[in-house]
Amino acid sequence: MLDVIAPLVISNTTKIVLVSLDGLGGLPRPETGRSELETARLPNLSALAAEAACGLIRHVAPGITPGSGPGHLGLFGYDPLHYQVGRGVLEALGIEFDLRAGDIAARGNFCTVDRAGRITDRRAGRIATEVNVRLTERLRRIRLPGVEVFVETGKDYRFVLVLRARGRRGAGGLSARLSESDPQMLGKPPLPVKALDPRAKATATLVNRFIAEAGRVLADAAPANMVLLRGFDQLPKLPRFPEVFGLRSAAIAAYPMYRGLARLVGMDILKTGTTFADELATLREHWDTHDFFFVHYKDTDMAGENGDFDAKVSALERLDDALPEIRALKPDVLIISGDHATPSVLSGHGWQPVPVIVWSRYCGADGVTAFTERACSTGSLGVMPAQHLMPLVMANALRLTKFGA
Amino acid sequence: MLDVIAPLVISNTTKIVLVSLDGLGGLPRPETGRSELETARLPNLSALAAEAACGLIRHVAPGITPGSGPGHLGLFGYDPLHYQVGRGVLEALGIEFDLRAGDIAARGNFCTVDRAGRITDRRAGRIATEVNVRLTERLRRIRLPGVEVFVETGKDYRFVLVLRARGRRGAGGLSARLSESDPQMLGKPPLPVKALDPRAKATATLVNRFIAEAGRVLADAAPANMVLLRGFDQLPKLPRFPEVFGLRSAAIAAYPMYRGLARLVGMDILKTGTTFADELATLREHWDTHDFFFVHYKDTDMAGENGDFDAKVSALERLDDALPEIRALKPDVLIISGDHATPSVLSGHGWQPVPVIVWSRYCGADGVTAFTERACSTGSLGVMPAQHLMPLVMANALRLTKFGA
Repeated sequence: MLDVIAPLVISNTTKIVLVSLDGLGGLPRPETGRSELETARLPNLSALAAEAACGLIRHVAPGITPGSGPGHLGLFGYDPLHYQVGRGVLEALGIEFDLRAGDIAARGNFCTVDRAGRITDRRAGRIATEVNVRLTERLRRIRLPGVEVFVETGKDYRFVLVLRARGRRGAGGLSARLSESDPQMLGKPPLPVKALDPRAKATATLVNRFIAEAGRVLADAAPANMVLLRGFDQLPKLPRFPEVFGLRSAAIAAYPMYRGLARLVGMDILKTGTTFADELATLREHWDTHDFFFVHYKDTDMAGENGDFDAKVSALERLDDALPEIRALKPDVLIISGDHATPSVLSGHGWQPVPVIVWSRYCGADGVTAFTERACSTGSLGVMPAQHLMPLVMANALRLTKFGA
Repeated sequence: MLDVIAPLVISNTTKIVLVSLDGLGGLPRPETGRSELETARLPNLSALAAEAACGLIRHVAPGITPGSGPGHLGLFGYDPLHYQVGRGVLEALGIEFDLRAGDIAARGNFCTVDRAGRITDRRAGRIATEVNVRLTERLRRIRLPGVEVFVETGKDYRFVLVLRARGRRGAGGLSARLSESDPQMLGKPPLPVKALDPRAKATATLVNRFIAEAGRVLADAAPANMVLLRGFDQLPKLPRFPEVFGLRSAAIAAYPMYRGLARLVGMDILKTGTTFADELATLREHWDTHDFFFVHYKDTDMAGENGDFDAKVSALERLDDALPEIRALKPDVLIISGDHATPSVLSGHGWQPVPVIVWSRYCGADGVTAFTERACSTGSLGVMPAQHLMPLVMANALRLTKFGA
C-alpha cells in the first residue's frame, strides 16, 4: 500500500493529530455487561464521535493479539505482517538505546545455573534492578574482537545486549540470524547459539564467547550467575514515514518504547515530560513546526494490564477531560484510536479490534454517537486493517491526489 | 496465515465446538421479504447471538459461490484459493473411498454414444443407481498394467474411478495433470485424455486404455454404453489441522462427504449415526478426549437445494431446539456458522456471505440480538474471510500468544 500512496501525496498546510490510547479497547465486565469505554463518562469523545466517521481497527489479523511493535507500525501505515520488529530491537528501543543500522540487539535475562551448568531459574529469582545494575557493570567489561559490546540494564532480571561492528568488518558485517540460548525450560544448560545462515557464523562465535565470559564474570553472583539471550535482531529497514507521507512528523510520548517506535519510522521525537499534560504542552509548543503529531497516552494500557477495570475507566475519563485542549488547536484531522486492546478482564493485550474516530471537515459523520467498541462496530469505517488508516487520514487532510487518470 | 498462526499457538484445556449448518445463509422470500433465518423461530440462537460477537463469513471472495470443499476448508482455516480440492478427490471423499497419497481420482459419468461413437446423452438417460451398480461390476474387470483400478458406484449415472500404482513405479508415479474426456456437448465423441505435463504421459495412456476398454465392456449396455471422465486429481497436501492449531480435533458428521473433508485435514473422524441427535450423542460421549469438535448439520442445505423454503425454516428450528444440548456441555468457545449459503429461492449454493456467531467469555457481545443475515451484517466481526475464523476462535480459546514483542 505504501508504494501506492507515496506517489499520490501532494502538499498542503493541513495539521493532523493522531492520539493513540495505548490498550484502548476492552471487554464488558461480567457484573454489568459494560466495557470500560461503556462505563466511563466521556462527553467530549462522544461529541467528537457524533461529528466523525467511526469504526474498528484491526492491527494484524483477526484473532491475532498485537505486541506494541506491530500495534504501532499498523497505526503508522505499515503492514505489521510485512515489517516485523524483533524482540531485541524492541527492548533496545524500550530503554532508549541509540541502536544503529547493523547493530545486533538481543534481549537478555540473568538466570541461575547449578554446578553442572543446568538452569534452575530462568529469571534469577527476579533480582532487584539495583543488583542488575551492578552485574551489568561486570558484563560491560567483556571484550570481543572487532565489535563494541553494550550491556544495558532493564527492569528486574532483564538486560539488553548490543554488538556493534568496529569499522567495516567485511561487506556483510554482523548478522542476527541466530538461534536463542534460552532453552525455555529448567534442568538444561543454556543452548549454544547457532548461525541460522552461513553469514551469521562469525556473529554466533562472538555471542557464544560473550556467554562463556558472562558465566565466568558472574560465577560468584548466584542467583544471577548466568545469562540467557534471545530475540536477536537488527533495526528493520522501514520506509521513512515523513517521506512516504510528505509530512513533517513528530512523536510526543512520555514512555521511551513509543518514542523508539516512532524513531524507527523516522519521526522527529519531541522532548516532553512524564505526564500527558506535559505531552499536550509539547504539542502546543510545536504546533507550527510539524504537520503530523503522534501523541501517545499510556494510562489506559497500564490499568488494563493490571486488570484494574476502574482505573482504566478513570484513565479514559482523564483523556476525555483533556480532549478540548487538543481540539482548541483546531487540527484539520483528529484521530483517536489505539495500538491494541488491553481488556481489564484479560489483564493483558487482547486480539479485539480497537475503536477509531476519524474527524475532519470531510469525514462524513456516520451517526455513531458514542466512542465504544459496540457503537464503533456499526460505524462507516467498518472493521479496517490498521495500515489503511493513514491513507484515509491523508485523504481527509486533502493531501492525496487521485489515483489513475 | 497458517504460517503466522502456528508459531503463536500455546496449550490450554479449553474446549471448542464449531457447528456448521450446511447451506446456512438464505435470501428473502419475495412474498414476505423475510429470509429463512428471519422467518424461523430461533429463541436459542437469538439468545446466543445476544451474548456473542456476530458477523458474516465469506468463504472464497465476493460473488464466488463455494462448493462444499472450499466452504469447509475455509471454515477449517485454510485459504480455499490456495488449497484446492479437485472434483475427483471430492467425489471419492463423498463415497468414503479410502483415497491414498498418489492415487488418481476422477469423476465418471455413464453416457450414451451412437454407432459412430458420438455422444447423444451425457448422463445415459439418468440410469438408476441399481443399473449403475451392475455396470460398475463390469468396469471393475478392466485390467491396466502396473496399477490397481477401482471403480465405485455413485448416485444415478455417476461413478468414481481411482488408479493406484502397484509398488513404486519410478520416482514420479502417476500424475493427475490430465485433460478431461468430456467434451461437455452432444454430437462429438469423447475426447482423448491428454497429458498436460510430460510426467503425466504414462497416466494418460492408462486412462485412454481404460476408456477404450469401457467402451467394449459396455457395448451392449445402452443407454449407458460409454463413460466420460473429468476432474482428475490427487489428494492435496494440506497442513494438518491438529498440528497447526495444537488441537485434538474431531469431526462428527452423518454424511460421508463432510467426514472426508475433515479427514483431509487430519481430524479424527468419530463414528456416529445418521441423525443430528446421533451426532450430539457422539459429541457428549467424546467430550473428554478432544479439544475441538466440528459438528456438521446437513438438513439446512438439503432443504435449500430442494428450493423448499418452509423445510429450511423447519430445519433451522430443529437445530435451534438442539442448541441447549450443546451449550449444556459448557464449551469455552462455541461457533455457529456454515460452509456456504443455500438460498431456497436459488435451489442451490449461493455466493452470499454466511452469518456467524462466535461465543466465548471474551468474545465481546456486540449487541446483535438475532441470528439473521441482516442482523449479523451489523455485528462486530464485519464481513470476514472464512479462513480468519479459526485464528479468532483460537484467540477466544486463549490458545494464542501475542504477535511481535
